[in-house]
Amino acid sequence: MDLKRSPLALPFPDMPDIDGVTLRIARARYKDWDRADLTFAELCEGTSVAGVFTKSACPSSEVELGREHLKSGSARALIVNAGNANAFTGYRGREAVEQIMEQVADRLGCARAQVFVSSTGVIGVPLPKDKAKAGVDAVLTANPCGWEDAARAISTTDTFAKGAAATAIVDGKTVRISAIIKGSGMIAPDMATMLGYIFTDAAVDPAFLQSLLTEINGATFSCITVDSDTSTSDTVLAFATGKAGNAPLTSFDDAGADAFSAAFHDVCRQLALLVVRDGEGAQKLIEIEVTGAVSDKSAHTIGMSIANSPLVKTAIAGGDANWGRVVMAVGKAGEPADRDTLSIRFADTWVAQDGLAVDSYDEAPIAAHLKGQEISVGVDLGLGSGKATVWTCDLTNGYIAINADYRS
Amino acid sequence: MDLKRSPLALPFPDMPDIDGVTLRIARARYKDWDRADLTFAELCEGTSVAGVFTKSACPSSEVELGREHLKSGSARALIVNAGNANAFTGYRGREAVEQIMEQVADRLGCARAQVFVSSTGVIGVPLPKDKAKAGVDAVLTANPCGWEDAARAISTTDTFAKGAAATAIVDGKTVRISAIIKGSGMIAPDMATMLGYIFTDAAVDPAFLQSLLTEINGATFSCITVDSDTSTSDTVLAFATGKAGNAPLTSFDDAGADAFSAAFHDVCRQLALLVVRDGEGAQKLIEIEVTGAVSDKSAHTIGMSIANSPLVKTAIAGGDANWGRVVMAVGKAGEPADRDTLSIRFADTWVAQDGLAVDSYDEAPIAAHLKGQEISVGVDLGLGSGKATVWTCDLTNGYIAINADYRS
Repeated sequence: MDLKRSPLALPFPDMPDIDGVTLRIARARYKDWDRADLTFAELCEGTSVAGVFTKSACPSSEVELGREHLKSGSARALIVNAGNANAFTGYRGREAVEQIMEQVADRLGCARAQVFVSSTGVIGVPLPKDKAKAGVDAVLTANPCGWEDAARAISTTDTFAKGAAATAIVDGKTVRISAIIKGSGMIAPDMATMLGYIFTDAAVDPAFLQSLLTEINGATFSCITVDSDTSTSDTVLAFATGKAGNAPLTSFDDAGADAFSAAFHDVCRQLALLVVRDGEGAQKLIEIEVTGAVSDKSAHTIGMSIANSPLVKTAIAGGDANWGRVVMAVGKAGEPADRDTLSIRFADTWVAQDGLAVDSYDEAPIAAHLKGQEISVGVDLGLGSGKATVWTCDLTNGYIAINADYRS
Repeated sequence: MDLKRSPLALPFPDMPDIDGVTLRIARARYKDWDRADLTFAELCEGTSVAGVFTKSACPSSEVELGREHLKSGSARALIVNAGNANAFTGYRGREAVEQIMEQVADRLGCARAQVFVSSTGVIGVPLPKDKAKAGVDAVLTANPCGWEDAARAISTTDTFAKGAAATAIVDGKTVRISAIIKGSGMIAPDMATMLGYIFTDAAVDPAFLQSLLTEINGATFSCITVDSDTSTSDTVLAFATGKAGNAPLTSFDDAGADAFSAAFHDVCRQLALLVVRDGEGAQKLIEIEVTGAVSDKSAHTIGMSIANSPLVKTAIAGGDANWGRVVMAVGKAGEPADRDTLSIRFADTWVAQDGLAVDSYDEAPIAAHLKGQEISVGVDLGLGSGKATVWTCDLTNGYIAINADYRS
């Protein structure tokens, strides 16, 4: 089926090159299509790497090997295959990934553990080794390309290319961060996964890069949901080439670490929201802010319960300020909540306070807000100081059409 | 909006009267409609009661008071209000329920703790005390009615009346069980809740009745999901009048306890499946059988993860045997699973075994099965002997239309 560009799409931003990173794309033709579907990022010697992966108990071989390779903290290459997730393909799938790693390591003269591979697309079909071999041969010698080309080449059912960039001053040097991501449902029609790649020319110690990514992941990629479904292949990798020449960042005590962390967080947040903006069938981006919970973790769980509720998501799709459904979603989250201290707002208008409907609230500004593309919902539990913000999109006929009707 | 009768609806069964139970209905006009919306079941002296309620942290006053009243183990009356859930209505809502309990207890000359009240409908609007008072006055003196009338009067957005019956031989006596239920989404459009009521003329000790209901609830009502949403008011109550004259059942050691338990289980399972059959927008009833898990509890969690996955539900709506989405739903359940021992079937055809797609499986019988109204999905984890069966319905445009578009 022909996927229309999301109404929430943003234009691809201007993004700076990252010294030490060379991007190339090629056509492996993993599916019967005429487009680049194999992406290669060559990384200079000395590049640090960090990563976070799906929590799925049934991950792909790419995820398993990626976790192992992270231990060295050093990367020279990233290969991304689009059109085949190579998940649930057993030893045959694993052999295909190992073949790619060996081929790239041989050519670059690096260790196999410095090569990272991701695959996204159909589940259950082993990645064809012959296509992968020819594709990797082609991509290793292809002309360098820009960020937008790479962002398109890693996409599957995405309706727009997604990138984000930021800069920071670290140790007197300007450091750059450029990043791309793909993803539209946790699994689009037979097409798996959110895959994100963040590149910076800053010098960052791998252990510190990992701690930054883990922490920021908890406030960005782990705070979005399109349909509550988690793929077998979700991956976010961060690469730091060190070419900016700053003294390597090793902890928050280092000068510039706060600035770098803020820029890194900003890029991750932008990437995460781009995925929600391309949520299958999405017409509205919904931000849910939870305050007054017993802990931040509890606030996050309650926020995701609201964000994953089909009834809340369909109500917002219909422009209905149905706060009863928000109460329901708070109640089912399994976290401490007290009906009689619960308050709920749409935009800036509180519709329920301390467990009672607000008699006098004005429907007009809420109705106007719900007609827009960016919706804000707030819940205060009145119990403590725990807080969290999560993002989702509305649930529309478009989601059903993409996921059910596409075979007809 | 006009709700069409579910294509999965079943005809209302012939159900025997239960000696000691008298049903009456009246029009309280909780909404601007011309239908019976207040139901009264009068129970003879000596009636035992047991109940299970929503796990929501924000339950209605009806649920809170119901839990308290259960402690006595004795019931004389059930009142059900339809059209207003009286949830999230604070002290005003609680006063309305207490008024009803007092009014009924006065008339019957029983304790207030022997009166049970349920309400279902819009959230956030206190149950109007004047309408409740007049309605209760009317229903107390109304002519007795039959099961189908009562099943209709407790309904809100249900598209068909739901009842189930069974008999068993206990202590040489034939005992009867007749039961009614309402529910279509966990919250239908502004209309809350699954409410189920089971009546039997068997003599059953309240503690044993409670242990039976708790156990059977775990295998029936707790194994269904329409949209993963849990209402503020979910309630199932069981009443045993003792008029059949058997020696009261107090444990599984008693003669006939097994037979009674089996009949009770059968009725609960029928009621639970009727709710799924009236799931909003449902076109297909889906049974998910999980085997080989590390425990029954783990199997249940995995089954519900599959049953709640929008991607699995939309795939089945589209007649697509997309087992990759089942793998995804197993992986995200947070329970022990091993990709390389996982097997998946549709009907009797295994499409994946031991972590690999079955190369040779025949699509034709699966395609034919998925065109039907009753779909069977099986997952074997290959890890242990834990098992569970859960039920859901498919996710279609009808769900979106009911929950989002109904205001337009």
